[in-house]
Amino acid sequence: MGAHAAPGEVVVAAATRVVIIGAGPAGLALANILHDNGIDCVLLEARTRAFIEQRPRAGFIEEWAVRGLDAHGLADGLLRSAPTHSGFEFRFEGARHPFDYTRWAGQRHFVYPQQVLITDLVARYVERGGRVLFEVTDAVPRAIESGTPAVTYTDPETDAPTRLDCDFVAGCDGAQGVTRGLVGGRTLSHDYGVGWLALLAEAPPSSDGVMFGIHPRGFAAHMARTPQVTRFYLQCPPGDAVENWPDVRVWEELHARLGVPGGPITGGPLIEKRVLSMHNYVTEPMARGRLFLAGESAHLVAPIAAKGLNLALHDAFHLASALLTHYLGGEDGPLARYSETCLARVWQYQEFSQWLSDIFHSSTLDPPPDPFRARLAQARLRRLLASPAAAASFSEIYIGKAADF
Amino acid sequence: MGAHAAPGEVVVAAATRVVIIGAGPAGLALANILHDNGIDCVLLEARTRAFIEQRPRAGFIEEWAVRGLDAHGLADGLLRSAPTHSGFEFRFEGARHPFDYTRWAGQRHFVYPQQVLITDLVARYVERGGRVLFEVTDAVPRAIESGTPAVTYTDPETDAPTRLDCDFVAGCDGAQGVTRGLVGGRTLSHDYGVGWLALLAEAPPSSDGVMFGIHPRGFAAHMARTPQVTRFYLQCPPGDAVENWPDVRVWEELHARLGVPGGPITGGPLIEKRVLSMHNYVTEPMARGRLFLAGESAHLVAPIAAKGLNLALHDAFHLASALLTHYLGGEDGPLARYSETCLARVWQYQEFSQWLSDIFHSSTLDPPPDPFRARLAQARLRRLLASPAAAASFSEIYIGKAADF
Repeated sequence: MGAHAAPGEVVVAAATRVVIIGAGPAGLALANILHDNGIDCVLLEARTRAFIEQRPRAGFIEEWAVRGLDAHGLADGLLRSAPTHSGFEFRFEGARHPFDYTRWAGQRHFVYPQQVLITDLVARYVERGGRVLFEVTDAVPRAIESGTPAVTYTDPETDAPTRLDCDFVAGCDGAQGVTRGLVGGRTLSHDYGVGWLALLAEAPPSSDGVMFGIHPRGFAAHMARTPQVTRFYLQCPPGDAVENWPDVRVWEELHARLGVPGGPITGGPLIEKRVLSMHNYVTEPMARGRLFLAGESAHLVAPIAAKGLNLALHDAFHLASALLTHYLGGEDGPLARYSETCLARVWQYQEFSQWLSDIFHSSTLDPPPDPFRARLAQARLRRLLASPAAAASFSEIYIGKAADF
Repeated sequence: MGAHAAPGEVVVAAATRVVIIGAGPAGLALANILHDNGIDCVLLEARTRAFIEQRPRAGFIEEWAVRGLDAHGLADGLLRSAPTHSGFEFRFEGARHPFDYTRWAGQRHFVYPQQVLITDLVARYVERGGRVLFEVTDAVPRAIESGTPAVTYTDPETDAPTRLDCDFVAGCDGAQGVTRGLVGGRTLSHDYGVGWLALLAEAPPSSDGVMFGIHPRGFAAHMARTPQVTRFYLQCPPGDAVENWPDVRVWEELHARLGVPGGPITGGPLIEKRVLSMHNYVTEPMARGRLFLAGESAHLVAPIAAKGLNLALHDAFHLASALLTHYLGGEDGPLARYSETCLARVWQYQEFSQWLSDIFHSSTLDPPPDPFRARLAQARLRRLLASPAAAASFSEIYIGKAADF
């Protein structure tokens, strides 16, 4: 890498075992684990290091995923500073309904902003001598069905077209990346038919944790972030324009949908407004030849149950383990089963997100899009709050506890 | 009753407390309980006694409902002869997947044909001197919002137009009855978009209990009935004609959808073929003035989870209890809450039936009506078989154990 070439000539970079495209949570977890275990790899990222270390994304990490990171030495910062959550609060019909999932499932969420996890993982990888190139925007896997694949890209320092030979390519470049389209197979998708207005307010949290407001005017959510900043969501029409949401309307809706007697909502300046479209996709299978997808290149799950980051880590752990088994154990069974193993949890989380979406978005909406289905969603919520068996089953999947689906 | 009148004159029958229209399970349970407790009532039934004692309907009674019948002395025959079920078998992908719900929920089904229960309840009511008129086809509640309602009908013996004054009317006359339309309110309905071909075969059961076959060609079910007769169901297009199902096709489909290695299906002559349309409705509220609906006059639930008869008994127990509280305790709270109390369980069962329907009808259908939703349904089934928490939650609602939703 960094070698100069005559015009039109392709530079052949020093070969590696695994090329990882994309330095998100999946790519960085994978790179760290492989490098720590002596499997040579190169990480290619389209953005700058500064950009990915500041881009706000998810922040709720399930306990099994934290344990998985910690088992590979990747959770030091997280374990040092992440607060944990063991419950949330439903708010509907003017009342608070606390739900303590740790009571039922015995595990917690760790709240750690994704960009901080990214920062930790980049620093650790670089400090230990991991090979990484930033600002590589045109990385393309080649010959993935042969025994000798490669990735071509333009070297960001020299502008030289470069070829990097490898044994395997890990496609961790997200929903907009190049690897998603290379697997073939099929993509199943689903649109929830709702939007979420994502808001950041310079306001102290109105409670310690997460609140889900279920209201005839639509869903709303509250997530404590820092003592000064709070994350809110408001259900809105899909594709709604931010201009339709002046501050006064935002606060009116937040007070109406989330405020209850004895549980007011604290206001403040709004420093971010974005409309998220709530949709999912799943690519099946998640591998082709020697290309393996991980994270949002393979599957997107709307942020209804905060599952996306956790699935990315789940993929990374399994892909790392399968590659270690290949190199250190001479066994290819785990690589062959990689897609099936990952998709099992992906579909469980998709199913759960749909189940929860019906409660959030359509149980009490007035007028209801489908009055019969609204009643079904109300029955779900009522049973969840009344039945210990239902609460235990919900909690297990909410925190992702089940080891094997 | 039985008094003669001049032409055109309305005979006024001896007044009673409660007129019960319809001698199905709800009406008969209610009539027995009221009569036993000294609350005078009259039961009016459109069909002959012989007809209702032979009409085959449901047959799976949940343990709480059996206990409820027994608490009122109505379960003697049932407890003497009904076999109990504690599990069933899913069959898919060529394998048997036994599911023991009693292990998780601690309660059982009692298998007792509805017409035998009806026979028991009619006999008991008549023996104890209960007033009943059969073949009353034109019973109509009157003045239900006044303090002095009545039911008019034509006396089947004298042909005289008759008026029967009462305090309350119980509308237990089913989906086709007159009372359903008198409550006002609203009816929420839902169509599953599938049909079931209901079959009776002169064939010994292929296993002791219930089997649910989930197959790319559609759902199929097996229910042991007697040593000589077996009930089968086959998913078919809604409104399909029986003529499309010659015997050879029926057996071909049953073998394909339900047979597995080591678990063959035993054939025999088909003695009944009917196409059921799978749809639901719920009337809200279930009461108006002094008219109270019970059973299918208020709600229909497709036979996916064998819930209809159990809901009818649930209504009857609550209506009986509310009327006893009115007469014996001078309290009207339970009558005022009757609709809400019943609808809570109705909507839980509707929700469960929809949940189960997705697994039965669309998880593996080929081609799938919606591939994304098919995957969600497959994830449900997989989790049900893999997670004790999910199995416990499912079992509780499958057997209807939860006392209060």
